[in-house]
Amino acid sequence: MVKLVALYKQPEDKKAFDEHYFNVHLPLAQKMPGLIKATVTRYAGTPMGTESPYYLQAEMYFENMEALQASMNSPEGRAAAKDLMSFAGKLVTMMIGEEA
Amino acid sequence: MVKLVALYKQPEDKKAFDEHYFNVHLPLAQKMPGLIKATVTRYAGTPMGTESPYYLQAEMYFENMEALQASMNSPEGRAAAKDLMSFAGKLVTMMIGEEA
Repeated sequence: MVKLVALYKQPEDKKAFDEHYFNVHLPLAQKMPGLIKATVTRYAGTPMGTESPYYLQAEMYFENMEALQASMNSPEGRAAAKDLMSFAGKLVTMMIGEEA
Repeated sequence: MVKLVALYKQPEDKKAFDEHYFNVHLPLAQKMPGLIKATVTRYAGTPMGTESPYYLQAEMYFENMEALQASMNSPEGRAAAKDLMSFAGKLVTMMIGEEA
């Protein structure tokens, strides 16, 4: 399975981030066609006890690379991407990966 | 479930990295007590078609934070951490997270 990964740096306003992320962005992302499952990880810190460089990570699973690409190019994928840029464009790192 | 996450930046020598990672480091990490499952993701790039800032991500799942901390402090956890620093100390970002 392949996955589309979004890694979010620590936001300045965590409450505002969470509100938009969980109430607006995640529901939009979950409408993407071909999405098999989505997981969201909250980072609590590092093993050294310091603040984590990242705040949140989303992992969206698709059957294969073609399905992932088609989903990103769909109206739902474009809507999710547009929303992402509107509230977290400066915080997010997007990557495409494959679980070994 | 909580997870211990290792994010590796792009290594200069991918072949040498892979050899050590899959033949030495991953087997050591998989000996850590209380480990429920471990997944390894290879990053192929970004949705923009550029090189991903990260090369590999490992996610190691534990029952709860106490189990994760105890595992890191075990002889097996210390051996894995020592090995990690020996081959990827400058490449790795370690984080502790919880799947929402």
